[in-house]
Order: sequence, then C-alpha cells, then structure tokens
Amino acid sequence: MADAAIELLKETVWKANLDLVKAGLVVLTWGNASGVDRERGIVAIKPSGVSYDTLSPAEIVLVSLETGEPLPGERFRPSSDTPTHVYLYRNFPEVGGIAHTHSREATSWAQACREIPCYGTTHADTFYGPVPLVRALTPAEIDADYEGNTGVAIVEHFRAADLSPVHVPGVLLAHHAPFAWGKSPAKAVEHAIILEEVAGLARRTEALNAGVPTAPQAIQDKHYLRKHGTNAYYGQPVQ
Amino acid sequence: MADAAIELLKETVWKANLDLVKAGLVVLTWGNASGVDRERGIVAIKPSGVSYDTLSPAEIVLVSLETGEPLPGERFRPSSDTPTHVYLYRNFPEVGGIAHTHSREATSWAQACREIPCYGTTHADTFYGPVPLVRALTPAEIDADYEGNTGVAIVEHFRAADLSPVHVPGVLLAHHAPFAWGKSPAKAVEHAIILEEVAGLARRTEALNAGVPTAPQAIQDKHYLRKHGTNAYYGQPVQ
Amino acid sequence: MADAAIELLKETVWKANLDLVKAGLVVLTWGNASGVDRERGIVAIKPSGVSYDTLSPAEIVLVSLETGEPLPGERFRPSSDTPTHVYLYRNFPEVGGIAHTHSREATSWAQACREIPCYGTTHADTFYGPVPLVRALTPAEIDADYEGNTGVAIVEHFRAADLSPVHVPGVLLAHHAPFAWGKSPAKAVEHAIILEEVAGLARRTEALNAGVPTAPQAIQDKHYLRKHGTNAYYGQPVQ
Amino acid sequence: MADAAIELLKETVWKANLDLVKAGLVVLTWGNASGVDRERGIVAIKPSGVSYDTLSPAEIVLVSLETGEPLPGERFRPSSDTPTHVYLYRNFPEVGGIAHTHSREATSWAQACREIPCYGTTHADTFYGPVPLVRALTPAEIDADYEGNTGVAIVEHFRAADLSPVHVPGVLLAHHAPFAWGKSPAKAVEHAIILEEVAGLARRTEALNAGVPTAPQAIQDKHYLRKHGTNAYYGQPVQ
Repeated sequence: MADAAIELLKETVWKANLDLVKAGLVVLTWGNASGVDRERGIVAIKPSGVSYDTLSPAEIVLVSLETGEPLPGERFRPSSDTPTHVYLYRNFPEVGGIAHTHSREATSWAQACREIPCYGTTHADTFYGPVPLVRALTPAEIDADYEGNTGVAIVEHFRAADLSPVHVPGVLLAHHAPFAWGKSPAKAVEHAIILEEVAGLARRTEALNAGVPTAPQAIQDKHYLRKHGTNAYYGQPVQ
Repeated sequence: MADAAIELLKETVWKANLDLVKAGLVVLTWGNASGVDRERGIVAIKPSGVSYDTLSPAEIVLVSLETGEPLPGERFRPSSDTPTHVYLYRNFPEVGGIAHTHSREATSWAQACREIPCYGTTHADTFYGPVPLVRALTPAEIDADYEGNTGVAIVEHFRAADLSPVHVPGVLLAHHAPFAWGKSPAKAVEHAIILEEVAGLARRTEALNAGVPTAPQAIQDKHYLRKHGTNAYYGQPVQ
Repeated sequence: MADAAIELLKETVWKANLDLVKAGLVVLTWGNASGVDRERGIVAIKPSGVSYDTLSPAEIVLVSLETGEPLPGERFRPSSDTPTHVYLYRNFPEVGGIAHTHSREATSWAQACREIPCYGTTHADTFYGPVPLVRALTPAEIDADYEGNTGVAIVEHFRAADLSPVHVPGVLLAHHAPFAWGKSPAKAVEHAIILEEVAGLARRTEALNAGVPTAPQAIQDKHYLRKHGTNAYYGQPVQ
Repeated sequence: MADAAIELLKETVWKANLDLVKAGLVVLTWGNASGVDRERGIVAIKPSGVSYDTLSPAEIVLVSLETGEPLPGERFRPSSDTPTHVYLYRNFPEVGGIAHTHSREATSWAQACREIPCYGTTHADTFYGPVPLVRALTPAEIDADYEGNTGVAIVEHFRAADLSPVHVPGVLLAHHAPFAWGKSPAKAVEHAIILEEVAGLARRTEALNAGVPTAPQAIQDKHYLRKHGTNAYYGQPVQ
C-alpha cells in the first residue's frame, strides 16, 4: 500500500508503541497501540509478540476496519488483541487511537476487580468520574471470541452506564489490564500514562486513609471543565 | 523587556522548571515553577500546558505581581495556576520562588486529606512541624476564582495556625497536590523534592507501625535549628 | 575446552547473567544464570561472588552435569548455588536454562512464605496456576547439603503436586528467593522477569482488595493456552 | 598533607560518597561516607552540605581520630555527623569505613522505631540477627552533644546487647536514619546498600503476611556462615 496517509499512520502507530515503552508502561512485549484511518477503513496495529527493540514502521500491520482481517500482502500477524481494538473503533467513532498495556498500577486495580474512584484533581483533569471496571467474560464468551467479546463488553458497559468515551478515555478489564484511547494514537498513549499515574495515586491514597471520600463534585467539575469544557483555559489557545 | 535582571529571572525559572522534571516530580506537563522580581513587580512563570522537552527561557511568561496579568507583548498564556502563585508572592514577602507539582507521594497525602506528621529528622531538617493540609474550596469559591482562592486559602491557613512560610516551606491542598516555595526558584524546587521524599517516608513509616508517635520535640528542634537557627552549623559558612 | 558449542554456551550464559542485571532483578552479585549442553553433559554457570561489571564469557565456569564438579582446568569457583542448578537439570529434562535472583517482589513473597495466587492474565500468560512455594529445609537437610537439597525439595514439590516445569517455569523457596527456568538461558531470564512482575502485581492487588478471588479458571485456561496450547495464536508463527 | 596514604584515603572516601549516590541511597546532600587511617590517627570525611555533583577528592576533610577536630589547614567544615563517625571509629576497632544515609526503606524503619527482623537469606547473608534499633537521645543528651552522643548510644546498644559490629554491620537510629560500616569505606557503602534492600524486602514481607515468622535459625546460621564463617565457600578464595 504505497499511500502517503497510510505510511504516516504506520509511522504514528510505531511511535506510539515506542512511547508506551519509554513511559515505562510495558514489560517485555506486553502492550500494543493502534490507530485508525476511517476514510480508508484501515486500522494499523503492532504485530503480535514482536520485540520493541527491533520494531520498525514497516512491520506495523494493516487490518480492515470492517473485518479485522490483515490486508492482503501483510507478512506479520497483528496483535492478538486486534479484535478488541477493531470493535472499539467501530463503536466509538470519536476514537482515533487505542493503547493496551499491563502497566503496574492500573493492572493491579484491574486484578483487584475495582473501578478507580476519583480522589483528586490529577484524576479529574482527564477522567470525568471513576475509571470504570468492565466485568469478566463468561466461559461461553471466552470460548466463542475472547478478544472480540472483550470489545463488546467494554462498549456495553459504556452504553449501560451512559458513559462517553471522550470524557472517560480508558477502562479496566476485570482480572486483566487497562485499555486507553483518544482522538489519536499519541493521545491514547497519553491517557494510558495518566491512567497509570492516577491508579498509583489512588492506591497510596487509600493506604493513607482507608475511608477517604472522593473529591467533591465541584472540584471534579472545575478541573475537568477547565481543560475540556467550552470555556477551557488550560494550555495554549488552538492556533 | 530587554532587561538583564529579567532575562536572568527567566533563565532561573526555566532551569527550575527543568529541575522539577529531572527530579522525577513531574509527569507530562503537571508542574510549574515561578520566580519573582519584587523591585520590578514582575513574576516569571511557565507557560500553560507546554511540553518540557522544548521549553526555552524565551517562552517563560512575565506577569504583573500586582494584577497577575501577562505583561504587554507576552505571546504565551501563563500557567493556569498563576493566580495562586501571584497571591502567595503578594502575601508571603519572604518568598522568592514557588513550585507546584503532582508528585506521587505528596499528592497521595493531599488526596488522602491528611497533613504529614513529622516522623523523623529528614522531615525536621526542613519543615518545622507537620506539612499542613489546606481545606478544599467551597463550590462558591471555586466558581468565583478557583486559582486565586487557592492562594487565599493557603494564606488564611498559615495566618490562622500562626505558621511562617519560612519555617514551613510547603503545603498540601486537599484533594489536589502540593505547593512548595523558598527564597529563590531553586530553593522552591529543593523544598518540593524534600516534601516528596518526606511524604514517602511517612507513608512507609505508618505502614510499618500504625501507631508510631511523631519525633520527640527535642529532636525536631535540634534538627531544624542546627540547619536554620542563629547558631546553625550545617553546611559551609556563608562567605 | 576449545569446542564451538561450549564457547557459544558460555557466551549465552554470560549474556543471560547480564540480562538479569539489565532487567533490574539483581543487586550487587545476588543472582546467577546457567545453561546446559545435555549432549556433552556440561553445565555453564556464573562464577561465585564475581562482579557483573567485569564478568566476561571466559569466566563462566563449566561443571559436570553428572557430578556438579568443575571441569578440569577451570580457574574459578562456580556459583555457590551450583548444586541446585545441577539437580534441577538432572530431574527436569525439558529445562535448558536456570536463573536465580533475589528480585524485590518475588523475594518478598518467598520471605512471606506464600505461593503467588493467579490474580490475572499477566500471570496466566506464563504460569499455569499459582507460583508454588517450596518448604524450608530441615536443619539436617541444611547441614548435609544445603544447595543440593534445595534442588531435591523443588523436584519433590513438583512431583507431589503433579506440576510440570514446562507449565510452571519458576518457584519460590520459603524464607529465601525465586528460581526460574526455561528451555534456554534467555527463556529462564524472561521467566524471572515475569515472575517478578507478577509478584508485584499480586501484592498490590491484595492491598487494594484483601478478599479478591483468583482469576476465573476459564480466563486462566484461555490466556495460557492461547500462548502455549496446540492451537496457540499469540506471536508470530514459528518459521 | 602530601602523604600518599592520605591522598589514597581521600580518593577512597570520595569514591565511596559518589557510590552512595550511584546506588540511589542519597537525595540532595543527605549522606556521608568516611574512612580511617588508624596508623596516622586520621579520619577522612565528606564536607558538610556540599553538592555531590562537584565534590572532588581534594575537598574531603581530614579530622583527628583523637579529637574529631579538622587538621590544621583544612578549608572546609566536615560533615555535621563527624562526631558520630569518630566515636564509632574509636570504639569499634574493626571498622575502617562508615556510611550514613537517609535511604528510603531503611529510614522508614528507623522512623517507625522498629528493628528489622531477619525474614530471609538476603538479610542473613550479611546481618547476623535483626538490624538493631538504637533508642532516641534524651533532651539532655541532644543538648550536650547531639552527634557525639549518637555515637555513644550506638556503642552502648552494641555492648548491652553483646553485638559485634563485624557481624552486625549497621544500625537504625530511632526517628532518624541508618548508619552502616565495614572494614573499608567501600564495604560500608556495600552494607548500606544491603541494609536498604533488606529493609524494603521486610516491609513488603509483612504487607503480604502480617504474622510471618522470622527465618529459622538454621537458615540464618547457614547463610551467614557460608559467607563469613571459617569454612566460608561463597565467592572466590582470597589470593
């Protein structure tokens, strides 16, 4: 596929994968980032089980947004989590990039089968409300299509709880690990970093004060909206 | 402003911001350091939401100590926390630099809504008494002027508790994060580092001995005064 | 021994030892990795108490798989844990490499005298079931042959519990530290890294939820088998 | 003092101070290492409050082993903890080097006012029995000679408990921090590293199993004696 937009997407996804490693979120090969080109209907994702040390943009695998299958001519298997990514792209139209890791603090909450309460402004700056916990799949769901049904469970959770993937850019899977996303692969990585940071803060917060209340709603609103509301004033004005 | 003193201030503040990152206190863009030139009535502070990777001294924003507004000709928005910095400079005349971070251990205490008890000499060497916790703002205060009222709450707390910003060079904001300060931007960064260290020590101390008493007053006095009293003998004599 | 296969083995074992250090699993000289050439009946292992900074492939010690004694002409003493390695090689024929460390999280579980429950997919991807805890030796066993009997206790535990060293590639020794192994020295190091990671996740998981259940069996089966079963689909197909 | 032995001592002490920093045991200027030349009656120690970044061997301060006072011509103040070092050298004749830090895990135990129980072989390899906790000084002792009386309290504790500074190469001071020592400055640094490591392992061990017993005496004896006993077989034979 000698298409400049697709080459750029592969480069962007390659960089996002390396940025997960640089941020310390990945041990061995446990992580993957992807991006989507909705116009062309193509998802670009890390190959499965390949070392980050030697990963090149050319090795990023292209799969169909519609079928989840590698495009003709792809030499590598895509990440085993590809069906989860593809399902999320199909159901969260605002999402342009997805990152999955087994980062230490977030994975500990996932294994503890708990959502992360909003204990402070660091959390509220990016996640509006708790970081949700998605239920474990049933044996039948696992058997039928483990990775695809993981996507289904995430989307069902967001719909049932009336959550927006824009305001809640990540999730914990019970007994497993986090997924994060954003409007681009770079934003997905940034949200994965923030989720990890917030998870660690919340663990230590509870260790210091077992009965601590969550941050007052007025503070949660203020911090989320000063960065993301229509009157946002954090950062530089968009040029 | 082609003024050598102001250029030096910008350079000093730029370096202080980078030193926060080097010390591991900052994730992404979550931190800011500032300095003041009281003679000229100017505060220099990090621009809002700008990456530390590319930050240059020229991008440090100058604001009026009196109004908190950027000086004419400034191209960048100052940190969203600027009103807090400016209010502290106006009310703590001994303070020459301020640093705000979301550093991991100190932020965990802030989220836990607890002051940090003085459990040992590491703490007593720099903070005379506990690191105070300032109450959360009310919804009305948040709505009126969140960042400015954060400064007001800090100053009110110090006055009500008869604390000196010289002997207590930092504070925790409930549900939020720490601020630290000193006679210069470099000292503010040093105190932010010490606050983080002291916060981690105190968390682990309580984990090891839930009912541990604070350090005896005689030890707190000795350590603080051997560094800061009129007969201080720690370090080299001032030339 | 000017034998190309043996030179390669020494180089491989040397690299595995350095990789333990790079992975942060080793403090000072507390760790050792070995490999076996079953055809020649030779085990290659780190010399005892030698600094990693200056370790060279030539210093890796060759010992007899049959007797555990250094081959004639070896100048250095092998690791004091050599009898454990040799006993494991003799009784676990699938094992080609062994790594022993005092890595922080795994050693804490060993000292706590607890096996590591399988709380999530990170664990299930590599260890099928809990990471076992092997009992402390009796004073008589310690007195007779401490390091040899450590190997005996590991093998007895695996036989009594009907565990396979292929599906459970590591173990904790009560009051001591972990051993990990694999089909090669590189795989042994990889499993030592994973064991450390899994141990830290499990500790934090329990801190967040004291009564958390282990991962459902269906998830454990799915994750282990998608990587290791006959229909494995993780990673790239073997060429 | 143009004496080759003294120049070498200063170089050795300088390196030991830098090695404390490299090992991650020191924040800012919180640490100091020293060495003694008993023949000449001279102790070499870090200057007080000087940054490690610019420290040179020439700045290491020489003080009298007899009086604790700087030798004539010394330009810098020695570490404020010099009287503690000197008192230990005078009373522990086997000791050739001393290191003091506020390292994170060991200081947490000191602040928790607890000795560190021997929970495993990592501890037993170097410390025979628990790492002792020395009582806080009384206000009168602090007032009279804080740093000198800190040395007195350590020595009294070792004598009262019949402990040998050779077999117990370090100590915790209540509400304060650790001291470690050895036959040379390099060994003192090594023991400071081990004390920190052992402290962290013990904290996590208790978090995983609140009622865990200490390591059986037979294991403690075996590990200590295989490294330090008359029939020691760990490491390479002394040439």
